[in-house]
Amino acid sequence: MDYYSGYITKLIEELSGLPGIGAKTAGRLAFHILDMPGEQVHELADAMVHAKNNVRYCKVCCTLTDQDICPICSSPQRDHKTIMVVETTKDMAAYEKTGEYNGVYHVLHGAINPMAGIGQNDIRLKELLERLKDDVNEVIIATNSSVEGEATAMYISKIVKPLGIKVTRIASGVPVGGDLECIDNVTLLRALEGRVTV
Amino acid sequence: MDYYSGYITKLIEELSGLPGIGAKTAGRLAFHILDMPGEQVHELADAMVHAKNNVRYCKVCCTLTDQDICPICSSPQRDHKTIMVVETTKDMAAYEKTGEYNGVYHVLHGAINPMAGIGQNDIRLKELLERLKDDVNEVIIATNSSVEGEATAMYISKIVKPLGIKVTRIASGVPVGGDLECIDNVTLLRALEGRVTV
Repeated sequence: MDYYSGYITKLIEELSGLPGIGAKTAGRLAFHILDMPGEQVHELADAMVHAKNNVRYCKVCCTLTDQDICPICSSPQRDHKTIMVVETTKDMAAYEKTGEYNGVYHVLHGAINPMAGIGQNDIRLKELLERLKDDVNEVIIATNSSVEGEATAMYISKIVKPLGIKVTRIASGVPVGGDLECIDNVTLLRALEGRVTV
Repeated sequence: MDYYSGYITKLIEELSGLPGIGAKTAGRLAFHILDMPGEQVHELADAMVHAKNNVRYCKVCCTLTDQDICPICSSPQRDHKTIMVVETTKDMAAYEKTGEYNGVYHVLHGAINPMAGIGQNDIRLKELLERLKDDVNEVIIATNSSVEGEATAMYISKIVKPLGIKVTRIASGVPVGGDLECIDNVTLLRALEGRVTV
């Protein structure tokens, strides 16, 4: 790859390190960046550095925020006795976008995955247990519906139930608007098991 | 999008401005960047700014380089009497990777495209004509095989031929390893027209 100037090669290399960006895409992005006005390139570079320097974990729920305690955890309008446990800040944002959930969150930053060497101490479970010492009515487990997410959900329910706190899991089934014939067997069986009286 | 810290939102916005990066991918990249070690983030940001600040056009062939005159144009080993005209620096790199072409290049930085308002004065044609005042044996037109590339090739051949310089166009036809039944009609006809005696 010494067909380009060293600066271009270096930029392509750095961009290739991002997830889902192969050598071809990195090349396309690099030449696009060279074509951008200098000001815009600086803004993009600054946005990266500023985000990295200023974003940290909320001291209560562990979400990524630029304050010590995130706006949701510090809001008096939220129900602090209901905690929804999610894997990532993005999952939290997905539920926030619904605008209907009024409780607070706890972000694990991952899920238990023994195959990848991620155990219960590698995600933010200790911080969750710490929070449960306060008055909490319900823990809603909203980890992903993957093997790792399910394992994490089971583990959490196992350690939280003995504390006398209600533990729930978000429903698994056919997505709204989903076509039955396009849905996999496991989901169909899960939907059947979780059927509700109408 | 105020579900995230302002810094994260700003970073996602900036990343969404890159070609082929939608809101979802930008989100994924942003959270990956937040997860990267601070040092790596700085390296990525610096690579962008350094490339933008140091890369300019070669004074001879107009390719992107970090020197006044690129290594190919300043090499005494290259045949400076044969000029291959390409659309982009990436196209030039593609031919360089073959390791077989020994002439020099001329990078147009685009192709004539009246629909997009790109005329003959918006690409580096003036610089090419300037170079043809020196002793040049052959101009090889290697613009893309698209409508714009073909139009540009025709335009160049029309203005270069009267100068008494040999003008050639790279062959268009079936790619090596290509399966005839998977190839479009236009390419098949082009391959037939361009058939050579064996």
